[in-house]
Amino acid sequence: MPKIVDHDARRREIVRATWRLVARKGIRATTMREIAREAGFANGALSPYFANKDAIVMAAFTHVFETADGRIEVSTRDRRGLDALRRAIFEVLPLDEERRLEARIVVPFWEEALTDGAKRDLHATTGSAWRSRFATHLREAVVDGDLDATLDVNAAADVLFVFAMGTQTQVVLEPERYSAERLEALVDAFVDRLRTER
Amino acid sequence: MPKIVDHDARRREIVRATWRLVARKGIRATTMREIAREAGFANGALSPYFANKDAIVMAAFTHVFETADGRIEVSTRDRRGLDALRRAIFEVLPLDEERRLEARIVVPFWEEALTDGAKRDLHATTGSAWRSRFATHLREAVVDGDLDATLDVNAAADVLFVFAMGTQTQVVLEPERYSAERLEALVDAFVDRLRTER
Repeated sequence: MPKIVDHDARRREIVRATWRLVARKGIRATTMREIAREAGFANGALSPYFANKDAIVMAAFTHVFETADGRIEVSTRDRRGLDALRRAIFEVLPLDEERRLEARIVVPFWEEALTDGAKRDLHATTGSAWRSRFATHLREAVVDGDLDATLDVNAAADVLFVFAMGTQTQVVLEPERYSAERLEALVDAFVDRLRTER
Repeated sequence: MPKIVDHDARRREIVRATWRLVARKGIRATTMREIAREAGFANGALSPYFANKDAIVMAAFTHVFETADGRIEVSTRDRRGLDALRRAIFEVLPLDEERRLEARIVVPFWEEALTDGAKRDLHATTGSAWRSRFATHLREAVVDGDLDATLDVNAAADVLFVFAMGTQTQVVLEPERYSAERLEALVDAFVDRLRTER
């Protein structure tokens, strides 16, 4: 069914163009006209794919979250426990240029989510998936004897998740302080305190 | 100098009115006209006090941060170590209705700070003050023998600060999950892992 594949491919092109523009200029300054130009479409040619700018922006956010999920999937494959935990967390922390750009999209997304239930739902769904992934790997580490058996796994997963959300803001507001090295060191220091033996 | 006192008092009234409106409606939807009405001023009568809406909004943010600082000051007076640390952190976490409203202002503030150096500077100054306060109390707790002497105090203070920033977003996006009880429990679980004896 080549027509359907083409439709999806064109939606992805539009989403990627939107993502680039929003990271550069912010949501409000990005217009439908500019998205069309950036994606290589004629003005007005986006309407078969997206009803309006909000639908495109929502698809762009979904794309960012799904991309992060995909990275976690690849990076933790055939791994478990503390090794998988570190890899999963590092995939959602803004450690490289691309993920620092993502943070510039996530912060305006949150601002819109204050008054938009669909965006809040998307955030909550992502949050829930990441927290339970962190908890799974923490639980594996307890089973493996790497973490203290009395550890409150859900609380530790929640602290890591809220910390990861905090880093999105901090890397764009205090980029010098929150380098990749600093963020990795903070996670390692945290995880280290959860171990059985010190 | 009663005239100066009056000037400051009127600026504070305007700031408080702005704060209420922004928490309710967001920054963009709040107009100078509405701020004037909410503060009990005639339309156009704000200009002797603030040049424009951005100056008022900036003053409102400064007010939120100074209010938090004031709460920490009161709540940690004559206290030290872990007791002071918990109290300081709890004052910047969105644990009650007023501070949950503050979070609704802080998130849009961050969004504006992405493209506004003065707002980034204000955030960085506040962050620096809070991190160093957390570090001071952690250091006291090490001296008092309540925390592990090998603890990296600055890393622990930084994790707590980034976590506190993350809670601002989470309480407005997932309010049911991040209740006051849950947030306090997460901080206590974190601090507990820093202790010398478990």
